[in-house]
Amino acid sequence: MPDISLNHLAVVVDNLNDALGFWCGALGLERAGTTQSITGEGVDVAFLNLGDSRLELIQPTADDSGVARYLARRGPGLHHFCLEVPDLDNMLQALRDSGVELINEVARERDGRRYAFVHPASASGVLLELYERM
Amino acid sequence: MPDISLNHLAVVVDNLNDALGFWCGALGLERAGTTQSITGEGVDVAFLNLGDSRLELIQPTADDSGVARYLARRGPGLHHFCLEVPDLDNMLQALRDSGVELINEVARERDGRRYAFVHPASASGVLLELYERM
Repeated sequence: MPDISLNHLAVVVDNLNDALGFWCGALGLERAGTTQSITGEGVDVAFLNLGDSRLELIQPTADDSGVARYLARRGPGLHHFCLEVPDLDNMLQALRDSGVELINEVARERDGRRYAFVHPASASGVLLELYERM
Repeated sequence: MPDISLNHLAVVVDNLNDALGFWCGALGLERAGTTQSITGEGVDVAFLNLGDSRLELIQPTADDSGVARYLARRGPGLHHFCLEVPDLDNMLQALRDSGVELINEVARERDGRRYAFVHPASASGVLLELYERM
């Protein structure tokens, strides 16, 4: 396993069933588990296997969610990607020391997964998520 | 090797040196070769290793290139990604049969690499490149 690897690549869609029709039905990617409703964030998500990483399809389910606003402003398409690093605290410290703007100055945790986001202003316009490898 | 894998993920940047300062300098990704100038397309590109796949940084070098227009319209950020398939002609036939809109109805070839693009209208807003595995 390299030091830094791609965990997933995320696409915002307006209709998850239509999107699955393309990515799985026509193209042939395989589902990784069932669709999850993350009510706290107002989204439904489906993961598809993509070699060692995954493609995440995100459909907003609440008009006031961040993803719904993104979809309204930019349309469907690539939203963010997520890199796995061995030690997230070390990485965040190194990024702060380099003057990189972070959305989360310190790691957050959900379902046992430690993560943080780098601000697009510092990452070539990319919303970059960082995971600590589990 | 799975049937479909991620070859690369591409980000449009306005300044390749600044972008390399973040992705390599601060984050620690490693270069995969040197910067290439693709004069026919009006871009400079740098590839970075990302596990089994690669991150491609693209800077337009001509104001009238498609990538320059994209940068002017959308700003820097995620541009496209590229999946590798075992048999590109079979895949394109299957996609046409499914009513998927292709930018290249038949495979194109450059430097011995066979490729085609799927139109974002059929791929959840994503500009999707397909490579035939070499």
